[in-house]
Amino acid sequence: MGKQGLRTAVKVDTTKDAGTLPYLHNRWHPDIPSCETIKNGETVKIQCIDWTGGQIKNDDSANDVRDVDLTRVHYLSGPFEIETAEPGDILLVDIQDVQPLPDQPWGFTGIFGKDNGGGFLDEHYPEPAKAIWDFEGIYCSSRHIPGVKFAGLIHPGILGCAPSQEILETWNKREAQLISECSHMTREVAKPPEPKSVHVGTGDDKIKEKVGKEGARTIPGRPEHGGNCDIKNLSRGSKVYLPVHVKGAKFSVGDLHFSQGDGEISFCGAIEMAGEITINFSVIKNGIADMGLKSPIYIPGPVEPQFGPGRYIYFEGFSVDEQGKQHYLDATVAYRQTCLRIFEVLNFRWNMSLLCLRLEGA
Amino acid sequence: MGKQGLRTAVKVDTTKDAGTLPYLHNRWHPDIPSCETIKNGETVKIQCIDWTGGQIKNDDSANDVRDVDLTRVHYLSGPFEIETAEPGDILLVDIQDVQPLPDQPWGFTGIFGKDNGGGFLDEHYPEPAKAIWDFEGIYCSSRHIPGVKFAGLIHPGILGCAPSQEILETWNKREAQLISECSHMTREVAKPPEPKSVHVGTGDDKIKEKVGKEGARTIPGRPEHGGNCDIKNLSRGSKVYLPVHVKGAKFSVGDLHFSQGDGEISFCGAIEMAGEITINFSVIKNGIADMGLKSPIYIPGPVEPQFGPGRYIYFEGFSVDEQGKQHYLDATVAYRQTCLRIFEVLNFRWNMSLLCLRLEGA
Amino acid sequence: MGKQGLRTAVKVDTTKDAGTLPYLHNRWHPDIPSCETIKNGETVKIQCIDWTGGQIKNDDSANDVRDVDLTRVHYLSGPFEIETAEPGDILLVDIQDVQPLPDQPWGFTGIFGKDNGGGFLDEHYPEPAKAIWDFEGIYCSSRHIPGVKFAGLIHPGILGCAPSQEILETWNKREAQLISECSHMTREVAKPPEPKSVHVGTGDDKIKEKVGKEGARTIPGRPEHGGNCDIKNLSRGSKVYLPVHVKGAKFSVGDLHFSQGDGEISFCGAIEMAGEITINFSVIKNGIADMGLKSPIYIPGPVEPQFGPGRYIYFEGFSVDEQGKQHYLDATVAYRQTCLRIFEVLNFRWNMSLLCLRLEGA
Amino acid sequence: MGKQGLRTAVKVDTTKDAGTLPYLHNRWHPDIPSCETIKNGETVKIQCIDWTGGQIKNDDSANDVRDVDLTRVHYLSGPFEIETAEPGDILLVDIQDVQPLPDQPWGFTGIFGKDNGGGFLDEHYPEPAKAIWDFEGIYCSSRHIPGVKFAGLIHPGILGCAPSQEILETWNKREAQLISECSHMTREVAKPPEPKSVHVGTGDDKIKEKVGKEGARTIPGRPEHGGNCDIKNLSRGSKVYLPVHVKGAKFSVGDLHFSQGDGEISFCGAIEMAGEITINFSVIKNGIADMGLKSPIYIPGPVEPQFGPGRYIYFEGFSVDEQGKQHYLDATVAYRQTCLRIFEVLNFRWNMSLLCLRLEGA
Repeated sequence: MGKQGLRTAVKVDTTKDAGTLPYLHNRWHPDIPSCETIKNGETVKIQCIDWTGGQIKNDDSANDVRDVDLTRVHYLSGPFEIETAEPGDILLVDIQDVQPLPDQPWGFTGIFGKDNGGGFLDEHYPEPAKAIWDFEGIYCSSRHIPGVKFAGLIHPGILGCAPSQEILETWNKREAQLISECSHMTREVAKPPEPKSVHVGTGDDKIKEKVGKEGARTIPGRPEHGGNCDIKNLSRGSKVYLPVHVKGAKFSVGDLHFSQGDGEISFCGAIEMAGEITINFSVIKNGIADMGLKSPIYIPGPVEPQFGPGRYIYFEGFSVDEQGKQHYLDATVAYRQTCLRIFEVLNFRWNMSLLCLRLEGA
Repeated sequence: MGKQGLRTAVKVDTTKDAGTLPYLHNRWHPDIPSCETIKNGETVKIQCIDWTGGQIKNDDSANDVRDVDLTRVHYLSGPFEIETAEPGDILLVDIQDVQPLPDQPWGFTGIFGKDNGGGFLDEHYPEPAKAIWDFEGIYCSSRHIPGVKFAGLIHPGILGCAPSQEILETWNKREAQLISECSHMTREVAKPPEPKSVHVGTGDDKIKEKVGKEGARTIPGRPEHGGNCDIKNLSRGSKVYLPVHVKGAKFSVGDLHFSQGDGEISFCGAIEMAGEITINFSVIKNGIADMGLKSPIYIPGPVEPQFGPGRYIYFEGFSVDEQGKQHYLDATVAYRQTCLRIFEVLNFRWNMSLLCLRLEGA
Repeated sequence: MGKQGLRTAVKVDTTKDAGTLPYLHNRWHPDIPSCETIKNGETVKIQCIDWTGGQIKNDDSANDVRDVDLTRVHYLSGPFEIETAEPGDILLVDIQDVQPLPDQPWGFTGIFGKDNGGGFLDEHYPEPAKAIWDFEGIYCSSRHIPGVKFAGLIHPGILGCAPSQEILETWNKREAQLISECSHMTREVAKPPEPKSVHVGTGDDKIKEKVGKEGARTIPGRPEHGGNCDIKNLSRGSKVYLPVHVKGAKFSVGDLHFSQGDGEISFCGAIEMAGEITINFSVIKNGIADMGLKSPIYIPGPVEPQFGPGRYIYFEGFSVDEQGKQHYLDATVAYRQTCLRIFEVLNFRWNMSLLCLRLEGA
Repeated sequence: MGKQGLRTAVKVDTTKDAGTLPYLHNRWHPDIPSCETIKNGETVKIQCIDWTGGQIKNDDSANDVRDVDLTRVHYLSGPFEIETAEPGDILLVDIQDVQPLPDQPWGFTGIFGKDNGGGFLDEHYPEPAKAIWDFEGIYCSSRHIPGVKFAGLIHPGILGCAPSQEILETWNKREAQLISECSHMTREVAKPPEPKSVHVGTGDDKIKEKVGKEGARTIPGRPEHGGNCDIKNLSRGSKVYLPVHVKGAKFSVGDLHFSQGDGEISFCGAIEMAGEITINFSVIKNGIADMGLKSPIYIPGPVEPQFGPGRYIYFEGFSVDEQGKQHYLDATVAYRQTCLRIFEVLNFRWNMSLLCLRLEGA
């Protein structure tokens, strides 16, 4: 390391429209041009904006959550060309630090409205809502949820290498089939390619058009490259083994979180933030075959908040839904029921109404 | 406590047929007579046989798993009448110790065959198999899985109070509907009342007939009383708040485990054992209303094996099944895929083939 | 393991005078005859009485602490001849379980009087006192310290193999020198051999006389064999590597504790109890040379109460004594000052006066 | 917090001679002028240089350790005037973050020579030595100790408020007495006021002369204000309650460590570094009396590396020194013996010779 400290591979300008910045993109596609080259073995800092590109403000209205434009998300920093990386290799991502941007020590949790974005519990909580969290070192607190302060564990929600054209086609085919088969459902089950708001960094109009037609959305995670993993422990000291599918890996990262829950019950299952991640990159030649890697592997660091096993409360999950109807081994129903039961206990014991999250203006 | 130590409320005789023992039963029903009375505030030891009633032997053949009679399970110790407990109260169960039976320091994991019992992965592993585990203090090891030794956390898989007649009817109606709606599926989605092998402790033929017709099976857990909870941390020092639905609570317990996984991928997701549990019982009058309790709450003790966050490996779960078909937010698919991926990694890195669990004779 | 469970190598009779029991002794000496033989590789249960041999009663008077006969302590179970063990070997002691005696679910903490036994803080707390603790599973509470309940970690305070005659002579010479050099001090700095109350199990009068003259007392621990180690984490799942100095090892164990503090500030720095320890013994041939072992090595098990780092309070230790006099890097002064400061904080914040430990009758 | 992020109350210039910088000082004295004012309730960043003021270089020679000028240490940042703080108050120091300086991602451990500085084991390791550690996120490694990499826990070694003139006199009297009483010893037992190299920030020559005559050295910690506490867990999320003895508190901080051992066996018991600490300050009026605070209290944060209890090795400490002579309850002897024993085990098992720390040029 030089006297000047680590190189910042991307420095974001939060005053500009995210959709114009050359070092951001919001789709997965092999043709999005790299914004920067990183050496095999190098450690760099990468700044990221929040996943919505600044659509959600540090104020007391949930109107921005109500009106969020989801064709724009998630803005990722990159892609970065990692020297020497080729298809078949593994890119070992060593997360050395994750911090908020110095001038933006806050984040947000959005409860997305049923009509725009929705979420796991939108049948029960259909209205949009928002909580702003202020960061103080490892702790955060919110003026919208008085009396709560806890230690977060900052991590990236999304990281991965670009898919190959072939993998991209598999994704599009697979997700199109799901959408087709669920056409009777009243909700969006997958997000098909979307030309609106597509952003491809420095890519020209031709690339933009192609990515608009073919580019994979940043929701959900996908087994072939990881992507939207939202692993709450993936903080300082963690390692990720990512399969490389294109020359130069074309690594991207974004969607930083101050803290993430066990599961996502409000679309944002996390405290969303802009920030700076420090990563060491190294290439493991022929790693996919040598390690038998089909999907990324994540190894968290040895540091996380510890409270001891006796300070947890357990609930049992049951496949009986809120109408009293039983389902067969349905973990999704069981998880939803358990969430609702926890809310009741929180309400009962601490009068901590979820209503406190419901803001004016909706 | 007296000079003689704690009272043993039930002492099991593992040499006798479980279906003849007066202090065991294998259905949930309010009419099963109590086998013993316990004072409010009292601490007692309760011995339990393994859930199958001794059908699985400490040998090297999986034939007993292949041929297990599942109409007989789970054998529970009880019911116990807890003095002063009435409907609307909470029974606070304070687990003070759980130990193997001194003369039975071993347990088993059964991989149930697809044709009898099945399990979460029976499409991939259809044959029955068995692993016997020997206990040495907190550790266990298996001659069927060489090279593995780990510290368990002994706990009961099933505990709860008897349902009221009204709750029982709800259960039967709810589960009958599920069975009816899933009649097109090739697998058993719930277990209806089953007269065969029904055992009601000291109950007479009339009770036996009634329980055979109406008694709820011990699979699955049910929100109104808990039952088959299989919470892996529910060991020494844990507390459980159980709703009381009948006079005297009629508490039962059984299905002890030496260790339980995160999820049940082989029907037995645990190391099954006979053992002795020490419990202090206390009644919280009117607790259901006062605490707003709809389902049991479980608070684990402060003691469990700790390895540090850096010794875990994380995988991301994806709703893409083994045929490459995508599903909508299907946690069950995602969990199954992750299990299969973990097996691949274990195989690849340690050549730890699941085949080593597949025994002769099937 | 057979159908009958583990063999109990020593079963204590707490109704008899400890000084008459053939399986107990209270000095370290190579000539004390073994009370039992244990195979290399065998797992056995060993019962132990409390270190004083029952001198301290489960009552509310500290008179027994005031009048304790310290020439009798510590009563150890053994010695056990371990087959095949020879000088130069290591005896690997694998602690599988430690439990209270079923009929004695209580223990005591003695604050020894300055005039009899004393302790680290006897200048500040010269009067004898006593607290009785009742055990409930992993937890304990005391009628003498209302409002306190915590999870203990049961372990043996003393374990080791017999010294050789040569090592014994080193000890006696070394400790005699210390006593001689500290003759100006008003306190006992070491305990020389003591014929009074010496007990040598089944040893005859000749052995008794010899051990009375030469036998090492059970205080303090000694580097050549361990002995009085009082390591609070040495509970279930722990391993100890003990040097063997005589043929058959002549292993002894005793002084069980329900819980031990970080340091011993009241002579008993622990909750003393009778109990039963389950140990697997194995002999590592020529281990002392092969492992370069000079003193025992202790590896605790993976299970202990965990509360998280944020629930501890730290104090800094200073080498300035209670008279304001500064000492040079004196950890003993610093520890004493920190103890006193903690008492002040406990007093101030919770009014938890140490006086509550001071009982009637003194 | 404003758009510009947190204010940096002191920004160090590591290219200048530390002894000329207006925001540093190297003695404790109430007359050293404050370098900056901080509001009650404010959060600021404070940069610190390493304790020696840059005397130790990132190179492979221990000559700088051999030749270190200890009249210059420790350089602390401050003093800071905390608005509204008055004698009798408590200054609550909430440590929000501690990081290396971006352009100095390395630290050092100095084994001080017996002839200059010395250390706990200088009888055994009299030669000076040095290890340079490179930081990578939460991990560090050293080219001088191949094969070792571990997660540190960055914290300040020294923090405290200025003593009053009266307290300062107590210190000087107390330490002069110790020096006088130990005049027969061949080693320095305390450091008296030292005019040489005294630095008092912006203080004029008169103040400089006074502080040279009276100012307390930064070794050791002192019960009245804390100072050199070297608590290894005092990292992000920790709180310290410091007594205030002068108007404005005059808080100083420095001596940052990347990681600290349990005890200091080489003078530097830590990895020394320059860095930036983020602190929130708040004043608890009349706190000393209200909380009964005689010395600082330290509450570590909930985040620290966790490895699980089973990965530690315990040694018993014995008061028998390396000549085989026994001492009376001497924790210092016992600690030294245990250190030596650990070295033997490290040597034996991993051939990890301390010699690898001994560098050329001495």
